[in-house]
Order: sequence, then structure tokens, then C-alpha cells
Amino acid sequence: MNPKLATIEPSLIRALAAKKKPESIDLGLGEPTLLPQARFIESATRWAVRSGLKYTPNAGDPATRARIAAHYAYPGLGAAANVCMTTGSQEAVYVAVKALLDPAADEILVVEPAYPAYLKIAQLEGIAARGVALSAASGFRFDVDAIAAAIGPRTRMIVIGSPANPTGRVITRADAQRLAAVLGARSGPPIWVLHDEIYRELTYVEDAGSLAAVYPYTIVANSLSKSNALTGLRVGWALAPSPAIEAIVQIHAWVTSTASTFAQRVAFEIFGEPGALVEQAAWYARQRAGVLEILRAGELEFVEPDGSFYVCVKLARGGDSVAAAHTLVDHHGVVAIPGRIFGSTLEGWLRLSFVAPLDQFAEGVRRIAAL
Amino acid sequence: MNPKLATIEPSLIRALAAKKKPESIDLGLGEPTLLPQARFIESATRWAVRSGLKYTPNAGDPATRARIAAHYAYPGLGAAANVCMTTGSQEAVYVAVKALLDPAADEILVVEPAYPAYLKIAQLEGIAARGVALSAASGFRFDVDAIAAAIGPRTRMIVIGSPANPTGRVITRADAQRLAAVLGARSGPPIWVLHDEIYRELTYVEDAGSLAAVYPYTIVANSLSKSNALTGLRVGWALAPSPAIEAIVQIHAWVTSTASTFAQRVAFEIFGEPGALVEQAAWYARQRAGVLEILRAGELEFVEPDGSFYVCVKLARGGDSVAAAHTLVDHHGVVAIPGRIFGSTLEGWLRLSFVAPLDQFAEGVRRIAAL
Repeated sequence: MNPKLATIEPSLIRALAAKKKPESIDLGLGEPTLLPQARFIESATRWAVRSGLKYTPNAGDPATRARIAAHYAYPGLGAAANVCMTTGSQEAVYVAVKALLDPAADEILVVEPAYPAYLKIAQLEGIAARGVALSAASGFRFDVDAIAAAIGPRTRMIVIGSPANPTGRVITRADAQRLAAVLGARSGPPIWVLHDEIYRELTYVEDAGSLAAVYPYTIVANSLSKSNALTGLRVGWALAPSPAIEAIVQIHAWVTSTASTFAQRVAFEIFGEPGALVEQAAWYARQRAGVLEILRAGELEFVEPDGSFYVCVKLARGGDSVAAAHTLVDHHGVVAIPGRIFGSTLEGWLRLSFVAPLDQFAEGVRRIAAL
Repeated sequence: MNPKLATIEPSLIRALAAKKKPESIDLGLGEPTLLPQARFIESATRWAVRSGLKYTPNAGDPATRARIAAHYAYPGLGAAANVCMTTGSQEAVYVAVKALLDPAADEILVVEPAYPAYLKIAQLEGIAARGVALSAASGFRFDVDAIAAAIGPRTRMIVIGSPANPTGRVITRADAQRLAAVLGARSGPPIWVLHDEIYRELTYVEDAGSLAAVYPYTIVANSLSKSNALTGLRVGWALAPSPAIEAIVQIHAWVTSTASTFAQRVAFEIFGEPGALVEQAAWYARQRAGVLEILRAGELEFVEPDGSFYVCVKLARGGDSVAAAHTLVDHHGVVAIPGRIFGSTLEGWLRLSFVAPLDQFAEGVRRIAAL
């Protein structure tokens, strides 16, 4: 067996979800409860019945990649050649980490609180990884000085999720520019920024920054999972400059060969209809407004989300978030995700998703406050 | 960058395919030319529109996995828990190799001629790998003695493709039993057999063996790509006993998270309709009969395929198959795959697929014979 397996803790999110009972209030969900837009699945089906479902090139269908690159239009990433279609953004992150780092020499810096997969992938690949903690005192805002101070001699990649899972924080345009300036001013080999933008279309502030807009050594990972309620379609992509994108495609070719032609066709349709990518965003904005109203009327400390469909709340007594999450699901019928799994800086907090009906959210928050 | 990348040659198959002109005769194709069965895609679409496309568990949808396990009914592999749904059989092979071997200690033995991905994946993962050559003199038949003799002290996995890409050879039931007996009689840690069965449904002989039927340390990789003309759907699976399957699922969870829910639903439908998996097999049997008639009327030496949609032909003058393939595509309008890429034992041969119309196949063979 691969000895790395024993070093990686199994997913606690899945373990908690398995304890859920039918009557539980589920604030742990990491996926939309909306249905996807049927017309895109149906038109992809008509196309598939007519054309079959053949392999695309390893990097993906050129027309789909061209639409995606043109839509984001990041400087230096505007061509189909800058896109590798993947099996969800998970594979995009996996192949980017695997392609761009040398396990014998390089280190990854993960800005925390963060989605746990970044560190787990680094562990699996035998790549050194460290977290850099955003602080509770500043509401987990991106802190360019803290990130810059954490860079070590071996650091070759910084992973940023913005909008962040779990805090919903976004890096501002000004901070993205400052980070780009700091990184650009360094001597030595460039440091990659892996910007996970999977919640990009669910942003509720005006000044959200994209690293790819300002820093040429950015890899973007994204997908249609959250924006279009298509988690189960498994269509994502990596955007990267040459020659990083060629390395990514080469790894991807041996890992999964190609992304689903059907899923890519759905993406082709969505990126071909103006507005389709953000059609569901208004629903999340309304949910967020309701959630803020509920939380402001209560006693729990919380982080106002700039994006995503998560809100982090602080346990009234602080302490062990994993124990609290187990108590909640076992005795109070609420599924919530313990902050600690996103980094020690979020210990004492819980991540709540707001894809459930608002009355359930309110009842869940009441039970959490009564803990 | 990952230093392993520089050690892996890019895919020569894709390089040759890129040279193809519109008027070329393409005998290089590695995928069906038939259309998939529309009814399964359409019913999965109706289901998706109604139910959405949510994540399945990491291992895949339990009902789909149960149907697949029950269909093959291999001893010890008959439960849903023995199945991990993957992004095509490529990911099944990738995660199996990554999960079950220790790069610091273990070695893979690949029975050649073989699909090149097995060795490339081993290189990418830093796992020692060797080929064991089946001989041209015996028509590339599986040779249990040669395989047994090649096992070294570090060998922990033997990879067998049967029906084989590129030769179309299958391991017989008797030889599968002999190999199982040889492996079972060894002392020390068990050796895994990774049996790639992706061409299983396209078998033209009665005595085809399955390692999983006779050897308890077998991992099976398979997919709907070839049987049901669904290469672009990217739905495959690994079958494995516990605890290997748990290790496979754990790796899979960090690589791609889950297989496509849509693709799994198509598989659920296909495995729910008796005969659907082999509905297209008769077409391939007719193609093979036509191909054998053409080849028997000609001068080229060839390997009569027991399965798959490939036939290997020997270059009249032998020699450099890569140079011959380039000459063929550049000057004679024929795409054919050079034998050398499947292992040195197939140097001097070409792999031809028989998914093109038979008159094109006949004309392609005429041009190859005239080289």
C-alpha cells in the first residue's frame, strides 16, 4: 500500500454527514439545493444523441475552452490554450499541485481557514505544506502582510480560496494588487498563486479581486458546481499561462485522460448564453440577506460573508468545535461543520451553509446558541 | 515543476492523430465509431432534470455500484462496497496503482505488448516498473511461465490487459487459473493482479479468463467506453477486495472527489437492462470477420484478435514501426499506430483498429503492404 495513505485523516465532513438523521437540520451541506438549469442538460443531450460522446483532446474541447478563456479574459489567459478542462475543480487543484511543484524541494503555503483538500493533496503528493493563519480578531480578512511574512525560501505556491470556503471572505482588488506587488518584487524563482475561484459567481461585494487579473503566475481553479448547481456533473477547469498549462495537461492526461465530453458540452452551452452563469446568484443573495437578519437578531458572533454560501459562527463558549459538532448532530439534530478542520485559527467556530430554507437555518442557529 | 514530467514521453498516438488529414484513412482510432444508445442518455437526462445532479458518495452511487458488482459477480467482489466509480478506466488504473504500491519498495510488472499508460503512470508516481514480453513467435499469447519467471523480489503488482490493447489476445481460463495457482503458491506478501477488462464485452472466443474469477488479489478496471461507445462519458470503475477498495476510494476522493453523477446514472440504466452492455458487440464481431477475410487474402502477417477492435499486422520489411507510421500518415494517407509504443516486443508491427468501414480498412492494408 501507499504509505502516504495512513498519514491522511479521513474527511470529517463526510463522517458528520453520515450521522445525519432524516429529521436533522442540515447546515453542513457543501452543495446547492437548487436544481440545475434543465435547458443546458437537455440541449447537451440532443447534441450527444446526434454526435455521440467521443473523446475530446486531453486538454478538453477547443470551443468550450475558448469560451471559458474569453469569458474571464484574464491577461495572458485569454486563449483556449490556457484552459485545461478537468473532473471538477478538485482535479484542477490536484493536477496543478502535482504538476507545478517538486516534492523534493518545494513548499506550499495555504491561507487558512481553508478548504481541507489543499493540505491533503500536498500530503498525498509528499509536498511540504504550511498554513498561514488569518486572524479571528480581524474577521479572517485576507492579510497580505501575514501572507508575505509566511513565505519561506522553499515556498513555490500560495493557495488562496476567494470567496473563501469556509469564511466567505474575498480578497479585495487592492489586496490582490498588493499581494501581486509583493510577489513580483521578490528575486529568485516566481511563486505560483493557486486561486480557487469556485465561489466566484456567488459574490456579494463590489471590490472582489482576482489574482489572475494582476499577477502573471496565477493558476485559477473553477467549475460549474456551485454557480450552476452542477456538483454532480464534475466539470471544472484550470486556467494557467504557458508552460504551466502544458504541464497540467500532461499530468491530467495520465490521471483521467480527458474531462467528460457531455459535461464540457453543458459548459459550452452555459458559457454561450449571457447571464446563464449568474442566473442563480440572486437566490443566494436573498438567502444571505435573510441569514444576516437572523444572525444580527441573535447573540452569536459571526463573519459576514462577502461571497459563497457559508457563514461562520463562533460557539458561545468557544472550545472544541469537533466535539460541539458531534454533540449538535447527536443530541440536537443539527449538522454543522467544525471550524478546526479548516485550520486551527477557526477552532471554536462552526461553518454553516445557507442553502437550507431560512426557517431551518434560524432554528439551527437557535440550537447552536443554546449549546 | 514536477521533475517526473520531463521523464515521460508525450503520447505518440496523439502526435500521429494530429497529422491526420481529412482524406486520411484512420486505422489509428482507439474509440468506437458507433453512436451510443440514445435511450440511456435520454433517461439519465430526465432523471437529472427531476432530481438534480448532486454529489454521490466518494465511491459512487450505491445502487449503481450494486448493479455493477452483481453483474460481474466475481467471488469476493459481489457487493457495492467492492466498487469505486471513476472518471473512465484511466482513473481506475491511476488510483489503483497509486493506492496499492509503495514507491520506495514496490515494483510493477507490465505484460507487454501493453497500453502505454500503465508504464507512464508508474513513472509519474515514481514506482519501479518492468515489462515482461510476450513473444511474436507465439503470436503474443499470454505466457504464464514467462510472467512467473519475470516476478522479482519487489514485484507487488502485475498488470494484464485482456482482451489486450493492442494485440486483441485474451488470457484463457486455463491460463488465468495457472497464473492464479503460481501466484497463490508463493510465500511472502501477495502480488496484486490489475486486470484491465475494458474490452471484455468485445470478446470473440469462448474460453476467455478473468483473473478476478480465480485469484483473490485481483483489481479489475473497466468502463463503458468501448462496450457502449461512451468514451466521452468518462465512466469507469475499479473492483477490488477490502481493504484495497478503501485505499482506492481514499485516493480517488482527493484526485477527483467523485465520478460524474450523470455518467453513473447512465451506467445504472445500462446495467439495469439485460443485454444492453453487449448490444453493440455483434457489430464488432462482423467487423472482425470482414477484417480477417481481408487479411487472409493478403500477404501481411497478423495476429488474429480474440477480442478488442484491434488487429496487429507485421510490416513486410519489419524494422522501425515509428518511422513507418510517420511515412504512412505523411505520404500514404493512412493513420496506424506503431507497435513499439506498446513495448519493444511489438517493434516492426502496426496496430490497426477496425472501427472504420471495411473498404477503408482494405485500402489501408493494401497501402501498408506496399510500403
